[in-house]
Amino acid sequence: MQWRELPAIYLEEPGSPVERSSYLIELHTDDGGSYDVVNDASSPAARECCAPQSSARHNWEMNYQEAAIYLQEGENNDKFFTHPKNAKALAAYLFAHNHLFYLMELSTALLLLLLSLCEAPAVPMLRLGIFVHATLELFALIVVVFELSMKMRWLGFQTFIRHKRTMVKTCVLLVQFVEAIVVLVRQTSHVRITRALRCIFLVDCRYCGAVRRNLRQIFQSLPPFIDILLLLLFFMVIFAILGFYLFSPNHSDPYFNTLENSLVNLFVLLTTSNFPDVMMPSYARNPWSCVFFIVYLSIELYFIMNLLLAVVFDTFNDIEKRKFKSLLLHKRTAIQHAYRLLVTKQRPSGISFKHFEGLLRFYKPRMCARERYLTFKALNQSNTPLVSLKDFYNFYEVVGLKWKAKRNREHWFDDLPRTAFLIFKGINILVKSRVFQYTMYTVVAVNGIWILVETFMLQGGNFFSRNVPWSYIVFLTIYGVELLLKTTGLGPVEYLSSGWNLFDFSVTLFAFLGLMALAFNMEPFYFIVVLRPLQLLRLFKLKKRYRNVLDTMFELFPRMASLGLTLLIFYYCFAIVGMEFFAGVVYPNCCNTSTVADSYRWVNHTVGNKTVVEEGYYYLNNFDNILNSFVTLFELTVVNDWYIIMEGVTSQTTHWSRLYFMIFYIVTMVVMTIIVAFILDAFVFRMNYTRKNQDSEEDNGIVLEKEISKEEVIGIIELYKRISAAPETAQLQKIVLQMDKYGQMSTVFLGRRSRTKSDLSMKMYEEEIQEWYEEHSRKEESQTPLQEPAPAPSSSLKPLSLRQRSQTVI
Amino acid sequence: MQWRELPAIYLEEPGSPVERSSYLIELHTDDGGSYDVVNDASSPAARECCAPQSSARHNWEMNYQEAAIYLQEGENNDKFFTHPKNAKALAAYLFAHNHLFYLMELSTALLLLLLSLCEAPAVPMLRLGIFVHATLELFALIVVVFELSMKMRWLGFQTFIRHKRTMVKTCVLLVQFVEAIVVLVRQTSHVRITRALRCIFLVDCRYCGAVRRNLRQIFQSLPPFIDILLLLLFFMVIFAILGFYLFSPNHSDPYFNTLENSLVNLFVLLTTSNFPDVMMPSYARNPWSCVFFIVYLSIELYFIMNLLLAVVFDTFNDIEKRKFKSLLLHKRTAIQHAYRLLVTKQRPSGISFKHFEGLLRFYKPRMCARERYLTFKALNQSNTPLVSLKDFYNFYEVVGLKWKAKRNREHWFDDLPRTAFLIFKGINILVKSRVFQYTMYTVVAVNGIWILVETFMLQGGNFFSRNVPWSYIVFLTIYGVELLLKTTGLGPVEYLSSGWNLFDFSVTLFAFLGLMALAFNMEPFYFIVVLRPLQLLRLFKLKKRYRNVLDTMFELFPRMASLGLTLLIFYYCFAIVGMEFFAGVVYPNCCNTSTVADSYRWVNHTVGNKTVVEEGYYYLNNFDNILNSFVTLFELTVVNDWYIIMEGVTSQTTHWSRLYFMIFYIVTMVVMTIIVAFILDAFVFRMNYTRKNQDSEEDNGIVLEKEISKEEVIGIIELYKRISAAPETAQLQKIVLQMDKYGQMSTVFLGRRSRTKSDLSMKMYEEEIQEWYEEHSRKEESQTPLQEPAPAPSSSLKPLSLRQRSQTVI
Repeated sequence: MQWRELPAIYLEEPGSPVERSSYLIELHTDDGGSYDVVNDASSPAARECCAPQSSARHNWEMNYQEAAIYLQEGENNDKFFTHPKNAKALAAYLFAHNHLFYLMELSTALLLLLLSLCEAPAVPMLRLGIFVHATLELFALIVVVFELSMKMRWLGFQTFIRHKRTMVKTCVLLVQFVEAIVVLVRQTSHVRITRALRCIFLVDCRYCGAVRRNLRQIFQSLPPFIDILLLLLFFMVIFAILGFYLFSPNHSDPYFNTLENSLVNLFVLLTTSNFPDVMMPSYARNPWSCVFFIVYLSIELYFIMNLLLAVVFDTFNDIEKRKFKSLLLHKRTAIQHAYRLLVTKQRPSGISFKHFEGLLRFYKPRMCARERYLTFKALNQSNTPLVSLKDFYNFYEVVGLKWKAKRNREHWFDDLPRTAFLIFKGINILVKSRVFQYTMYTVVAVNGIWILVETFMLQGGNFFSRNVPWSYIVFLTIYGVELLLKTTGLGPVEYLSSGWNLFDFSVTLFAFLGLMALAFNMEPFYFIVVLRPLQLLRLFKLKKRYRNVLDTMFELFPRMASLGLTLLIFYYCFAIVGMEFFAGVVYPNCCNTSTVADSYRWVNHTVGNKTVVEEGYYYLNNFDNILNSFVTLFELTVVNDWYIIMEGVTSQTTHWSRLYFMIFYIVTMVVMTIIVAFILDAFVFRMNYTRKNQDSEEDNGIVLEKEISKEEVIGIIELYKRISAAPETAQLQKIVLQMDKYGQMSTVFLGRRSRTKSDLSMKMYEEEIQEWYEEHSRKEESQTPLQEPAPAPSSSLKPLSLRQRSQTVI
Repeated sequence: MQWRELPAIYLEEPGSPVERSSYLIELHTDDGGSYDVVNDASSPAARECCAPQSSARHNWEMNYQEAAIYLQEGENNDKFFTHPKNAKALAAYLFAHNHLFYLMELSTALLLLLLSLCEAPAVPMLRLGIFVHATLELFALIVVVFELSMKMRWLGFQTFIRHKRTMVKTCVLLVQFVEAIVVLVRQTSHVRITRALRCIFLVDCRYCGAVRRNLRQIFQSLPPFIDILLLLLFFMVIFAILGFYLFSPNHSDPYFNTLENSLVNLFVLLTTSNFPDVMMPSYARNPWSCVFFIVYLSIELYFIMNLLLAVVFDTFNDIEKRKFKSLLLHKRTAIQHAYRLLVTKQRPSGISFKHFEGLLRFYKPRMCARERYLTFKALNQSNTPLVSLKDFYNFYEVVGLKWKAKRNREHWFDDLPRTAFLIFKGINILVKSRVFQYTMYTVVAVNGIWILVETFMLQGGNFFSRNVPWSYIVFLTIYGVELLLKTTGLGPVEYLSSGWNLFDFSVTLFAFLGLMALAFNMEPFYFIVVLRPLQLLRLFKLKKRYRNVLDTMFELFPRMASLGLTLLIFYYCFAIVGMEFFAGVVYPNCCNTSTVADSYRWVNHTVGNKTVVEEGYYYLNNFDNILNSFVTLFELTVVNDWYIIMEGVTSQTTHWSRLYFMIFYIVTMVVMTIIVAFILDAFVFRMNYTRKNQDSEEDNGIVLEKEISKEEVIGIIELYKRISAAPETAQLQKIVLQMDKYGQMSTVFLGRRSRTKSDLSMKMYEEEIQEWYEEHSRKEESQTPLQEPAPAPSSSLKPLSLRQRSQTVI
């Protein structure tokens, strides 16, 4: 191989870069005074090499940093117009882009949101004095002001003004500030609906990027949604008029006696929540009146509502693809920007390892020297010592890989003495055998049936008898033995690396804790006993479709969680508004004048010599504090019998309150439709993917293999010695020692990461992606002459060979 | 053009066919006696030419007929193993394949189904004596026996046995027969659940092909559906056990006191039908118990139920595509079979007009000579006088076209005198102007608001006052004038050819009838007045998305109707079972021991001196006759409060009755999911289609233009004279006269038909279709040597040129 003969190439002293970091340019055009880089990279190595050595060296460090920032922006989908433009902005940027700052952002936002637990209609246990919570709020708001000022320093006033989300945040902040002060001064809370806007602080957090994306997607899906909603409402109005004319002559029908009632009841009927009831009075009078309701439901519920789903699904699909495209192209642009900063004038056709290493020191300070080199090697697909732009485009795919030396020993017990080895080997074979697995499945199934029968026999007796049932002990022992065998047979690390084993382990642990609780009679922990049936979930490993479904479920989980969070944010807004208007309006026996009085009744009367309590319970569905509001809103989301809650509140306030409930219904309908569309899309996508790649069955994520020879390692050690990076040198030396010990000339490393949705999309849209790239580069080419020195010259030496290679590889 | 010089080619006397009709072969190998063809074609022309003229002539007639049958089988997706194999089978086939027979089939099936209106738990007004309805049933069954015997004659005993659907039908028929006789003998009806099987007679009707297809699709979607359903039920069981342990210590909670109750209530909770109620007792005791319900609903309702939809949607998509593929290939094979029967030994590269005309005489007897020739010309894309196999493949697309001479005059009033022309021309321009259209939209909108306000002001007064409101007259006058202007400006034919105009017309007509009803005080027709708001629907023409949606809706309508019919068939089965078991079990105050007693209460008590009736009304939701059962089942489909019906019936019978309701829920869930998947699929498909063909906006269906010269017509007349078909000759002569009158040498004809789903699919899957064809022909080639004389030889003269042409055209 040509490679091994050229280790010295890595040591080559860099020439000057093709393009200079904008910070540097400013430094040189400004007074030129040196400044301290507030460095994101906290590793000593990174800090060490920031010490000024020579002007060229310093220049390069600046270039590395800016390239790393470009790559970060590409990854986070930050627009380039927010790119820090000078040294001052850079400092602010670095300050505002680390996990400490993000955590501060998040905790401030959470504090503000959680305040509503303690404010005015507070959860009884958490009630705080007005002075206390107003002071807390002011404190949190001041922290937000500080965060915003850092952001302004980074973006500059012009960009800050142009950044819409930040401007909205600023306005909300101002309003909140004024209100908090007013509360503090008056020592009493006024109607503060604006508290609902506190969500924006959470949404703006760096960690809530997924929520922002969801919200954007929801807003983008709105126009077609609203169109169909209008169609829905239009038919509703027509039917309301019809219903009013048809049924209002029947005086025993309370549902259609006025046009307003008619409209409200048809709206509720859309949710089916009052269904047979609303029909009954007219049906009792004339059986044919059911036709009206059947036609209405068929059109509205079964047709237009599904149409709504179809339209949202379609829009959603389209948006997902467009989003994927724009993210992909954004990353590509980021990589181009970074590339231009890392290429030297002398060798414009690629990045040498030295510069690549410098970039990684800023981009991923935690990465060790070995991994940096492996990443470089994984990127470099040609045999030259430079990474070309085309190879560099794979940066994001490769940089996430976790590298590990390929084990020479297969099992953890390979190094043990012969007897022990044989025993463990036996256990290993047993544990991996199908017989063992199916035996366990049988045990689990028997256990499941046992629990079912046992529970069925109980029939309301004393469930938690003092003496522990023997079946419990037997099954738990079996699971314990299985766990022990698996751990010893596979080794604890390999055992716990599988999600299913982790699940088994925790369920068995819980069962054991439950046994303890029973044995030592600790009543509050009895609920653990109840988790036993979860063992049964293991049975779903048996069928491929379930494995697929569960895998997809785990893949979807982050997205689902972010969608759930988005829903919670809407809940929060509505909960605040609900509390401000409806706190304390429903209570037992409150609504005796309304049609839903029964549900709110609470009567305590004596029959014979027994006290009978008749409870309607619906008074519990109130807006008395934020937790209650959340539960009430969840009940409204489920939509069954929601009209009872609506009518209860309405009877105690005005009939305009219905607007609140109806708007809430429509909002949750939007979010829920999006959620359904998302689940549909994800599963259909996944199933298409599996169908397309039926042959390549194994799905262990992305795996890459790279071999490093001893000479290469020694070469890199030389390099690091020159830039006097002691920890890296020591680390690499260890690898050399290891190689010497086993007498190898090279070691094979495996890079591994789990497959993401983006990887799947890459494979699904393979052909289209090429088109996008071409279109993108055409656009770039037409723009570059106007804006900045073209990237083309930097690789102008070999445009033909690049083109040729891309054709042969693809 | 080469074409015009060769009109004589059509007159060429046919040689002998490459392949002989199988009926003919039998005729010649059998005794050779002549037999009467029971001819589907009832037109005199067709009958006339069946008269024996010469043996060759007769041979050809047989070939035409068999080719027509092949094409019919291709169109109807009848498998070729049911192809009539000899002359006797042919006679039976022809007898069983015409609309009279189909109508008989349908009406027998309907009669059988409708009998349940009059049987035992009959609709009061339609009750018939046992003797009467049993006799009617026997009569209908005998008709079915006759139908089946015809079918057996056609298929032959072997094929008859192999045809699964027919065998099931025969078995059901036997059972029904025995039961009907038993009823007639005993003069009393026993538990006849088997009546539910009567549906099979309807499903087997020729006209219910779409229903059969739906049922097949439902059954094909079942396996993945059941998998996910098991997952759903599994979680339900786990949660039922958990819920039982957690909540049964609370004695005021009736929902979880036994495991069975716990299971049933969680099943009902899955439909959300008992939602806040089931939670309330435990929630009142411990607010945190809501977590149990929220987790349950999130997993089951919001996740797994959507997963179910996703899986069904995916399977559905896949099935739709596969179905389209198999239909397409089936049609192709049919065309190949027909082609082989129509090609002569002398000219094996194509079909001459003479033979094509012979085919059409059997395939579409109603088609006139001009249309036959135009179809031939439309198919023929080369300039030769023969239709090659490649051209013939388009047969189904072309044969459905309706041909009309392209009008020379633009408007209907072009021939009127100058003054009248100018007036009408003015009206025409006015009517087509945007100003006029938007004025009408404004009028409709104002009318809508007017109606709304008017209705809102009524507030339960006397709606139908004796004097007609003036606003009604004003708006109706405006609509009348619009209608008049449009009819005169566009001409009645063009006016009514648009669906929207037809809609306007009928709504206006109804409004006018309503006015009459009001003016002449005919109370029973007042409901017509109420239809006025339908005018507002016209506003939806304004926006493109709505037009799209409504167009798709109309396109979907047949499929939707067939899905609805499928649902009704399920309803029928369940209604029969329900009536047999639950007829008469619910009545006012029936269920005082159950938890839902309130809903069945009917109390008539006196407060002060007024009689107050407290009605629970749910006793109306019963299975007392088939109409009531249908309404009850619809209420169960909507699922809200269905548990009240279930509990009511359960309290009067055994708790096994719940199985009926739960199974019904699951069945409707399947059908409804399929319906949702269908709507989703159709709309997403349509939207993708529109996106793909954004440039070609006009969607007036398929249009083809063909020019015929005078010589050609004369040539065809000669041909028809030879086979002495007088009516055709006369018809064609008329065209020649017309041409002479206007002094034209040729006339242009337009062929038009509406676009079907199949056309859209053809365009969407364009690329894949080519692959399918290639794969298909490869398979054909590998099979043909074994089965029958290859189709290849018949076109072996020019295989290269065909291949070449196909490459240049595609």
